[in-house]
Amino acid sequence: MRIDLLVRGAAELATPLGTRPKGGRELGALRVIERGAVALSGGAIVAVGPEAELRARYAPERELDAHGGTIVPGFVDAHTHPVFLGTREDEFELRTRGATYVEIAQAGGGILSSVRGVRGASKEELLARLLTRLDRFLALGTTTIEAKTGYGLTVDDELKCLEVLRDAARAHAVEIAPTFLGAHDYPAEYRDRKPAYVDLLVEEMLPRVAETKLAEYCDIFTEGHVFGLDDSRRILERARSLGFGLRLHVDQLSALGGAQLAAELGAASADHLEFVSDAGIEALGAAGVVPVLCPVVPLFLRIDKEAPARTMIDRGLPVAISTDFNPGSCYLQSLPEALTWAALRYRMSAGEALTAATLNPACSLGRGDRLGTLEPGKQGDVVVLDVPNHRHLVYELGRNPVASVVKRGQVVHEAR
Amino acid sequence: MRIDLLVRGAAELATPLGTRPKGGRELGALRVIERGAVALSGGAIVAVGPEAELRARYAPERELDAHGGTIVPGFVDAHTHPVFLGTREDEFELRTRGATYVEIAQAGGGILSSVRGVRGASKEELLARLLTRLDRFLALGTTTIEAKTGYGLTVDDELKCLEVLRDAARAHAVEIAPTFLGAHDYPAEYRDRKPAYVDLLVEEMLPRVAETKLAEYCDIFTEGHVFGLDDSRRILERARSLGFGLRLHVDQLSALGGAQLAAELGAASADHLEFVSDAGIEALGAAGVVPVLCPVVPLFLRIDKEAPARTMIDRGLPVAISTDFNPGSCYLQSLPEALTWAALRYRMSAGEALTAATLNPACSLGRGDRLGTLEPGKQGDVVVLDVPNHRHLVYELGRNPVASVVKRGQVVHEAR
Repeated sequence: MRIDLLVRGAAELATPLGTRPKGGRELGALRVIERGAVALSGGAIVAVGPEAELRARYAPERELDAHGGTIVPGFVDAHTHPVFLGTREDEFELRTRGATYVEIAQAGGGILSSVRGVRGASKEELLARLLTRLDRFLALGTTTIEAKTGYGLTVDDELKCLEVLRDAARAHAVEIAPTFLGAHDYPAEYRDRKPAYVDLLVEEMLPRVAETKLAEYCDIFTEGHVFGLDDSRRILERARSLGFGLRLHVDQLSALGGAQLAAELGAASADHLEFVSDAGIEALGAAGVVPVLCPVVPLFLRIDKEAPARTMIDRGLPVAISTDFNPGSCYLQSLPEALTWAALRYRMSAGEALTAATLNPACSLGRGDRLGTLEPGKQGDVVVLDVPNHRHLVYELGRNPVASVVKRGQVVHEAR
Repeated sequence: MRIDLLVRGAAELATPLGTRPKGGRELGALRVIERGAVALSGGAIVAVGPEAELRARYAPERELDAHGGTIVPGFVDAHTHPVFLGTREDEFELRTRGATYVEIAQAGGGILSSVRGVRGASKEELLARLLTRLDRFLALGTTTIEAKTGYGLTVDDELKCLEVLRDAARAHAVEIAPTFLGAHDYPAEYRDRKPAYVDLLVEEMLPRVAETKLAEYCDIFTEGHVFGLDDSRRILERARSLGFGLRLHVDQLSALGGAQLAAELGAASADHLEFVSDAGIEALGAAGVVPVLCPVVPLFLRIDKEAPARTMIDRGLPVAISTDFNPGSCYLQSLPEALTWAALRYRMSAGEALTAATLNPACSLGRGDRLGTLEPGKQGDVVVLDVPNHRHLVYELGRNPVASVVKRGQVVHEAR
């Protein structure tokens, strides 16, 4: 049978299986095939198996040589903030000298510094920056990202960012699940009348964004210094009634109980969770919310408290690992790097880490039927690593192990 | 005046100055030139200054465009173990499940697993692996490495590794300062007669290695489970009398007092130092020993104790930052990545980190007169980063920021 593409020449192929999120002992249960290969046609996966078997069955138009590397599914990053203008290395240096996240925010830095940048930028400028960042995601093996707005914080500037995400998705191989994060912080002009910004979100911004259909999800930063539990519930209930899926930044800097709110509202994901309580973990598990953990963020912010990932996994929760790429609290685009830190800080095995960077985040984005594993019928999103087995993926850090990337059945990146 | 090469088009050039190691407030004192450029001829730096000035003075045969990036000196990694055969991702997975460094070593894993690999490998196999690793160092901006043996542990196998280093240095742009580390551990055949291995080192291996002139330095792993203080002193005094410079792995896993020994012997460097005492810091400072710190190693080994870098810097010690690249305790080749962790864990500023990755390690290798800064008369080792300023170098992690590399005045690497 003729096919478009055969990805072959690998020492190993490793993938989770299925379309549902995995927790507990299932999290690390991969299908590992020595000298495995993938056959693709029409943008989809046709077959996965030992190279010798696929060779006998299929006549490929093209072959992609893995050069003794490892074949895995395209990575899915379920938590990124990629629509911003300038970087914030000056704040990083301030933190090195001892300033805290909240101190920098209260001095007009932090999120609001990126808000000034986005408001002053044209769509074209933002699109150009975003496309460069998407190139880097792709080169690092990330074929799908969830992408949040949240640096506009006016109706027009938030819509501008959503349009930039739409235009980028049309122009670039990286698939984007867009999220409206108008409740990221209070803009400067609402600092002295915060309830009015909550009203604006509920009465004007959410309905306008819903009309455009430019966002799949609504997210919120639920934390003491930004949106408390009551305001969060009001905003998210409105979002849900307008058809948005829900994602929440919760329990990152304090034990506010945001995880329970995420569970109560049936959110798709609850993200960060450094301070989550036992009750919060129970609630997430019972409600089937995917915990999206960002292992590098507390390290980047020099906060000692880290998410109780091992407890969540052992209680069966289907954790996902994300970069939280953003210019303030984590300037990291590499999921391979995030996975090494998930292994080091959370004691996740290589198999657990791989599932947490593919199938589980795909499920948290409502794409588990289409993305996240290498199985016949799934979309042809394949990454070739230049390492001899999947365990090497978490073992090495500080280098990009991605040799080539296939998205929707097309070879879209090849390293030299 | 005609010159060979002009490195231009940068937003910024940043470099430490001088030929002596820097500590205290001098550590972070860079020369930073907006739109700075470098003129090179005959393999050396001819001039450094604003691009407009250099353009007026020099007519280059070739230009290297920095595309708005940042120009810095080539990185110098003063502590690497790059001569080994296979990687050890299986041990990484064992540590994830809870095994300790010493437990893995005592079970025949750890260093001795790499010793089996090196002993079974031909020179050609080892050279091929090493050259691939040197390609990666170069692509990550490292133009000079100190490289240790220590996985042979017989006269012939140690000499084989030194010959591999010599052959690699002849074939590759990366400059190598070779170090004999026969006292890395006791080989299996000496486990029950350790004093005999110390005798072998002192009476046979060191003199043989000295004859070949293939090693500039002698190193030793001074630690309770390997070489104690008395054996270390005996081995190192012999090495010194044979003309080797001295480097020591000290105070990494316990407070043995190895720093004081390094100071007493006038070593070029004392490396790791997680458990160094106040007295040890004083001794290093008084003796002018360069502390070579490896910020990722305790994170990789999941050991809570980290080197008191801030104390050393504030007391004037000229710290260097290294990867400690090796297959067991730190599979990291990227100095940019190590520098981010130096900023995060040691609270080193971007300027301090840059000096600690260039001038200070060059001085610890006796190359401060020739390497480590961008100044007229120094060797033409230049790195172009694709980031807008040197502060960005420590701010970003998980990605290689190196756009191009010049070694001895030649463009030896260009990323796409």
